[in-house]
Amino acid sequence: MNANLLILDGNQVAAKIKEQLEARISRLATKGVVPCLATILVGDDPASTTYVRMKGNACKRLGIKSIRIDLPAETSTDQLIATIKQLNEDSEVHGILLQHPVPHHIDERAAFDSISIDKDVDGVSTQSFAQNAFGFAAFPSCTPAAIMAILEYYKLPVSGKHAVVIGRSPILGKPVSAMLLNKDATVTTCHSKTTELERFVRSADIVIAAVGKPNFVQGDWIKPGAVILDAGYNPGNIGDVDYEACLPYASAITPVPAGVGPVTIATLLKHTVDSAEKKQGI
Amino acid sequence: MNANLLILDGNQVAAKIKEQLEARISRLATKGVVPCLATILVGDDPASTTYVRMKGNACKRLGIKSIRIDLPAETSTDQLIATIKQLNEDSEVHGILLQHPVPHHIDERAAFDSISIDKDVDGVSTQSFAQNAFGFAAFPSCTPAAIMAILEYYKLPVSGKHAVVIGRSPILGKPVSAMLLNKDATVTTCHSKTTELERFVRSADIVIAAVGKPNFVQGDWIKPGAVILDAGYNPGNIGDVDYEACLPYASAITPVPAGVGPVTIATLLKHTVDSAEKKQGI
Repeated sequence: MNANLLILDGNQVAAKIKEQLEARISRLATKGVVPCLATILVGDDPASTTYVRMKGNACKRLGIKSIRIDLPAETSTDQLIATIKQLNEDSEVHGILLQHPVPHHIDERAAFDSISIDKDVDGVSTQSFAQNAFGFAAFPSCTPAAIMAILEYYKLPVSGKHAVVIGRSPILGKPVSAMLLNKDATVTTCHSKTTELERFVRSADIVIAAVGKPNFVQGDWIKPGAVILDAGYNPGNIGDVDYEACLPYASAITPVPAGVGPVTIATLLKHTVDSAEKKQGI
Repeated sequence: MNANLLILDGNQVAAKIKEQLEARISRLATKGVVPCLATILVGDDPASTTYVRMKGNACKRLGIKSIRIDLPAETSTDQLIATIKQLNEDSEVHGILLQHPVPHHIDERAAFDSISIDKDVDGVSTQSFAQNAFGFAAFPSCTPAAIMAILEYYKLPVSGKHAVVIGRSPILGKPVSAMLLNKDATVTTCHSKTTELERFVRSADIVIAAVGKPNFVQGDWIKPGAVILDAGYNPGNIGDVDYEACLPYASAITPVPAGVGPVTIATLLKHTVDSAEKKQGI
């Protein structure tokens, strides 16, 4: 391990975000407003159930109301969209989160895109993506926003750096590529069809692992001094990065767990409070 | 110049696209439908006036109706949007093009985004961008679509190739990066804040110049065998690529003029016909 290695502590970043939220939630309370996040879980995937529970608990601890809607695995796309539309209309709900992934027979994209952009605190809709890619106001997807928040918290420079994003999903690889580009990084987006992936990673100042394969990124792929953010969450709390193998090369790295994960949840809470404030004209 | 150099002839690609459109336009005529493109020009910038005239002439030659709306330079954003909304409502209009750029006092993004997605044949709205980035149906921005059409026409492989896009504008650099990524290229998006631009270009299999600086891309930046597409259109019909200097290195290159330009116009016509057919349920 190199002497100057910085472990990017997601719990610390999340604590800072939550601390700032507490004052804002108290202020909303004086106006009789309680920020409210509605979470929809379709089916009973164990990992998804855990995530939804974690998000609900995080809301509760901070004084954000959470509504949990559990739908059976056999729910149709139309039924799911009808549920979302009810929540769009519900004036007490400030944020709507549809837990990804939904069962295969559901058109997840249609469901995501039925979430009103004002309540899309998870930043999953097509319109939210585009607004963010073009640098407008809209809630960015939470994991990409968490990655940016960690870089900002630790004052790690992005402008002019070469960022290599491994993964191109609509809720992670594509939006984080867009957000890094908007912060003036030179961004390379890699994926399963990339040839010579190692070559790209070796030239990266910032590596974003968003590939969904445990311990995928190898230590000897890392340019000495690179910053590594691991957005992977594989079964068993294993990241996409071979953490121990990368320690000798990285200048900064997120652990898994306690890296990107807690900041993602804090970002979701922040967006919910942002939405509640916006509705109040604050 | 290397012996196997392929000059990517935009006129040839455009002619092929137009040939396919003729039959479709005739078929629409039997149903009493004439595809119609409305073009809005705000102010009297000479280059923009030329582009609008070229597009109008191209429509006329193919049997597409064109409506040209000239607005004074002092038009407000609200007035422009009101004009666009009238065209959105007009059932005889299948495509709406707002000539870029508009005078500085106008919120161009708001104007672009007021174009109905069904009629956004120039692919400039935020929603059109996002739908394309995610690989859905929507009209892609015309110049990026023209670049992809040239690659396809000449059967130049994209999957697994390293594409370097120089430029990140909302109507060119960002959408062409997204479209190349969706065709499985590994895409690096470079821009004014990129350090060591030459290094990125030197590793590219496909170079997209979309920077708006005459003769910017130098010959000795080009990896031997690279494919170069020049989307630049600088005053005096000068591209972004130093064409002569790149000839010894490239395996294929678009000239300026007669490269990307004519295919962009043909793509605009194609989208207008697509829109007319879609409205007829064809």
